[in-house]
Amino acid sequence: MNYLSRLKTKVRTEATPIQLVVSAYLILILLTFFLLNLPIFLKPGVHVSLLNSFFMAVSTISVTGLTTFPLSQVYNHAGIILLEFLFQIGGFGVTMLATVVMVLSGRKITLQQRQLIQVDMNQPRLSGTVRLSYSVFILMLVLQLFFGMLFSLYFTWQNGLTHLKSAIFNGFYISVSAVTNAGFDITGSSLAPFRHNYLFLLTIMFLIMLGGIGFPVLVEFQQWLSFKYHHPQQYHFRFSLFSKLAVFFAVIFFITGTILIFLTEFKGQLADESWPGKLMTAMFYSASTRNAGLQLESLKTFQTSTLLIFSLLMFIGASPSSVGGGVRTTTVGILLLYLAAFIRGRRNVNIFGRRISQSDIQKAIVVTNLSMLLCLGAVLILSITENYSLTSLIFEVAAAFGTTGLSLGITAGLSIIGKWVIIILMFVGRVGMLYMLLLFVSKKEQDFNYKYPTEQVIIG
Amino acid sequence: MNYLSRLKTKVRTEATPIQLVVSAYLILILLTFFLLNLPIFLKPGVHVSLLNSFFMAVSTISVTGLTTFPLSQVYNHAGIILLEFLFQIGGFGVTMLATVVMVLSGRKITLQQRQLIQVDMNQPRLSGTVRLSYSVFILMLVLQLFFGMLFSLYFTWQNGLTHLKSAIFNGFYISVSAVTNAGFDITGSSLAPFRHNYLFLLTIMFLIMLGGIGFPVLVEFQQWLSFKYHHPQQYHFRFSLFSKLAVFFAVIFFITGTILIFLTEFKGQLADESWPGKLMTAMFYSASTRNAGLQLESLKTFQTSTLLIFSLLMFIGASPSSVGGGVRTTTVGILLLYLAAFIRGRRNVNIFGRRISQSDIQKAIVVTNLSMLLCLGAVLILSITENYSLTSLIFEVAAAFGTTGLSLGITAGLSIIGKWVIIILMFVGRVGMLYMLLLFVSKKEQDFNYKYPTEQVIIG
Ligand SMILES: [K+]
Ligand SMILES: [K+]
Repeated sequence: MNYLSRLKTKVRTEATPIQLVVSAYLILILLTFFLLNLPIFLKPGVHVSLLNSFFMAVSTISVTGLTTFPLSQVYNHAGIILLEFLFQIGGFGVTMLATVVMVLSGRKITLQQRQLIQVDMNQPRLSGTVRLSYSVFILMLVLQLFFGMLFSLYFTWQNGLTHLKSAIFNGFYISVSAVTNAGFDITGSSLAPFRHNYLFLLTIMFLIMLGGIGFPVLVEFQQWLSFKYHHPQQYHFRFSLFSKLAVFFAVIFFITGTILIFLTEFKGQLADESWPGKLMTAMFYSASTRNAGLQLESLKTFQTSTLLIFSLLMFIGASPSSVGGGVRTTTVGILLLYLAAFIRGRRNVNIFGRRISQSDIQKAIVVTNLSMLLCLGAVLILSITENYSLTSLIFEVAAAFGTTGLSLGITAGLSIIGKWVIIILMFVGRVGMLYMLLLFVSKKEQDFNYKYPTEQVIIG
Repeated sequence: MNYLSRLKTKVRTEATPIQLVVSAYLILILLTFFLLNLPIFLKPGVHVSLLNSFFMAVSTISVTGLTTFPLSQVYNHAGIILLEFLFQIGGFGVTMLATVVMVLSGRKITLQQRQLIQVDMNQPRLSGTVRLSYSVFILMLVLQLFFGMLFSLYFTWQNGLTHLKSAIFNGFYISVSAVTNAGFDITGSSLAPFRHNYLFLLTIMFLIMLGGIGFPVLVEFQQWLSFKYHHPQQYHFRFSLFSKLAVFFAVIFFITGTILIFLTEFKGQLADESWPGKLMTAMFYSASTRNAGLQLESLKTFQTSTLLIFSLLMFIGASPSSVGGGVRTTTVGILLLYLAAFIRGRRNVNIFGRRISQSDIQKAIVVTNLSMLLCLGAVLILSITENYSLTSLIFEVAAAFGTTGLSLGITAGLSIIGKWVIIILMFVGRVGMLYMLLLFVSKKEQDFNYKYPTEQVIIG
């Protein structure tokens, strides 16, 4: 007890917020690992090896969705519901949940705890962070409930009242999967039955994008709505540079992805579809690969070029502080802006009437390049240990690092080393390369981060 | 005539040295294209299409060595000798030859011409550049002659006097191929017959490294020798930071490559060899892939992982201002140092007691990242237009950009678009990404380059 309290003091005084966030993720993974091994969540007679079970735990908490076995054959209904619950925790991030618990329990939140939230939320300002993350949490939950009910109603209308139970189950499962970026497949055919239901696909895409745009953007949008409501005559609400960049790059990557997929699959996968069908499928994959990992058909029928484009989109990933992973859109975007500025002979990167700070550019460069090195190293190791095509390996690595969880079907056949490589990629992809880098930087050295001018952008 | 003289004045006053160098390369390619189409250099009855002929011209002047047809079936002896001559021009670079011609003809060299040489030689100081590049040129020629004779003698000793003519021909061809980085294959089996002749292989490796270490390093080494000779008592000769970095990274990449190849092929290609044989083969490929592109056996028998490592080494390439291409060792090296410095929380990159300037770091970041984007785009396009495995395509792209010229045998079967992609990669890889970027920067904006402090490093 004495030892524990000393440890507690040590952690409170010396641990940096980033160290606490990463530790919390690790503890959550171990807890999940323990839970997933409980017989009450498994179908009778099923045995899962410890490695596969740990793989599943990391995949769940990082909300990736890669699995080394078919979920529906291993977990019973209680197990699937447990997974849905864990996706929420993994998707929202540890600190966001800690905040909510503290707000609900009425405890006073210390400055250190606020900094912790600020780090996980990537909010450059401390003020009101707690209240805001609480309201985002509620918003996300309401969205999942609302669309879960909507989908349940739709499925009931389609399949009749006799299948009510499975309609509700599947409806909520899809809603949760889209918003939290889970993308785990419980039906075995993902969204294949709905490929010609455009309204359904558009709704899913909307939910995927909400989850991937980043919590701070949602917070600001909420603030903007409340501002408009309270001050209808005024119009000088200013969105942060981060929110503008997050939306801007999400749109840019979405459009670029759509065009590329459309072009490469025009004579392939899309050949037999109508024009709206071609466009819808290309749009769906452009949104899904950067983030959720839901699919309309087996990916094995796609062209190599399309699979490479998918890999690229998965590698880029979602916004920072979102349910997604990867290098993060704004990070890749700032690097691209920097390259463009250099080509045009400019010394500074200006966008939306602001200059991006040197330290943000520096972080974007380091995070992107180290992520490339990490994935390159992973592909190299897998090309030694695994007996699959290079395309499948590149795809698997990108899917793990981007926490997308799509696969060309090789996950179950990976060697022990291969599984560990994917586990590490999922973890780093979700926590973010920048946090991994700052993990060993002491509290003192990190503190300067809070003294920077206001218009810092979130990297990694 | 009036028009021509006005053009001449315009070029003299407005063109930047980089624009002149790139233009000279282009003119040389067109000239080579014309020469290679002359019937006197072709075997009787042979017809080569214009695209294949242009491909060959770019491959020759960029000293890459990729060919869409077997050389020995198309060119006669005169044609092969013409190629050897063109390798020299391509290997040494346009301006170096222009200098030599001017020195020989006794013409006065203007400041602009000196700047031109300085750019192509990447020398940060103007003084003595002309004399130095002249002496490097002589040194390289002497080396080729000396080792050409040595190899000829060796072949004569091996095969007897009856094969004297072919011994001399092959001896000089191998010597020229190694020093100028040509790597074209005229025997159809490259160096396969010599794989167990370690002294022979070591000699070849030495020549490859001399060509790839960079002319400025050779110049400084010459200066150091002359300094030692004239001032035997003093010892404060200082090598430039560039020379130190060039040698340092050449060694680092050589050792890393050797270890990686050794590990990935330990149970593959190297399994049946003795321990010295294993090491020698790994060393040979580590040196050859970064630069010359000579090979000991068909590359198709290598593991996918080894082919990826080869691709990486080819992509990195040789030193700036050498006979080689690629991103360049110092450029990749400085980026790696920068990443390492960031991880260790340092704001500056220090090495050999010097700080690397921010502008050099910036260039290294931009050049490396744009090169990756270029190669990635090339692989994407080829994956659409060609019907070869992803591994072959990645390998081909890296071989073209690194002007190494190794191939998994797909060059001849490339589509028209595929050939143009490779042509562009060979050109950009040889000229260097940085020059391509600075090509459209006007003379005024570039002039500040000459005002920088002395310890600038060469990038790209
Ligand atoms: K996912
Ligand atoms: K070559």
